[in-house]
Amino acid sequence: MTPVGTIHKTDAQTWIDIEAPYRPAMDGLEGFSHIHVLFWFHENDHAEGRQVLKVHPRKDTRNPLTGVFATHSPLRPNLIGMTLCRVVALDPPRIVIDRIDAVDGTPVLDIKCYIPSSRAFENLHLPDWV
Amino acid sequence: MTPVGTIHKTDAQTWIDIEAPYRPAMDGLEGFSHIHVLFWFHENDHAEGRQVLKVHPRKDTRNPLTGVFATHSPLRPNLIGMTLCRVVALDPPRIVIDRIDAVDGTPVLDIKCYIPSSRAFENLHLPDWV
Repeated sequence: MTPVGTIHKTDAQTWIDIEAPYRPAMDGLEGFSHIHVLFWFHENDHAEGRQVLKVHPRKDTRNPLTGVFATHSPLRPNLIGMTLCRVVALDPPRIVIDRIDAVDGTPVLDIKCYIPSSRAFENLHLPDWV
Repeated sequence: MTPVGTIHKTDAQTWIDIEAPYRPAMDGLEGFSHIHVLFWFHENDHAEGRQVLKVHPRKDTRNPLTGVFATHSPLRPNLIGMTLCRVVALDPPRIVIDRIDAVDGTPVLDIKCYIPSSRAFENLHLPDWV
């Protein structure tokens, strides 16, 4: 795994800077309003962080202890995070986004255009804590 | 990165087998109808596969040459694939799913419960090739 970019955050703006070798991979992003950003929870990259298999969702102990695959916890065996982001502006090498569930300095692993799927809504159900 | 499971496919069924150490992380998945499965395009894990930065979407040369971040191409700098799957049955360590864009034997990196986001539909736009 090689970071392809880095997340930056200020009070005013959130953006991704794409590393020079990967900038050609941005061509065509202008067609999409939304992207999935995959990143690495680098602050949890230690044995303890990766060994956590159950958490209380949303860090609320009133929520049942739940396997991390059934949550979006930043503690998981492979520390991949994912947020669906709205593209606010595309100014290569910068992708300005609305918000992201990651801290300033987080390494970006991949960006995938967001294509909605009708399959997402077939017989959808969710647990009570959601 | 450590595989947490493996994708299996037969004519009759598609499923994920979760490796023994990670099975506790499945608890709670029964509440969700859909999951995002993150996997590794292991067949493309060579320098040539990872150096491809532009493709014709859907392998159709009538579609414009497009940066891989603006596609779901299995050729990309980090070979992470992602499919939104419907959970057909949960029979630990097996998760039976409807279908997935990966071949039999593909290593699974992560599973994330699917929680729909209203943000996905704010001012949505997509390029013509979609």
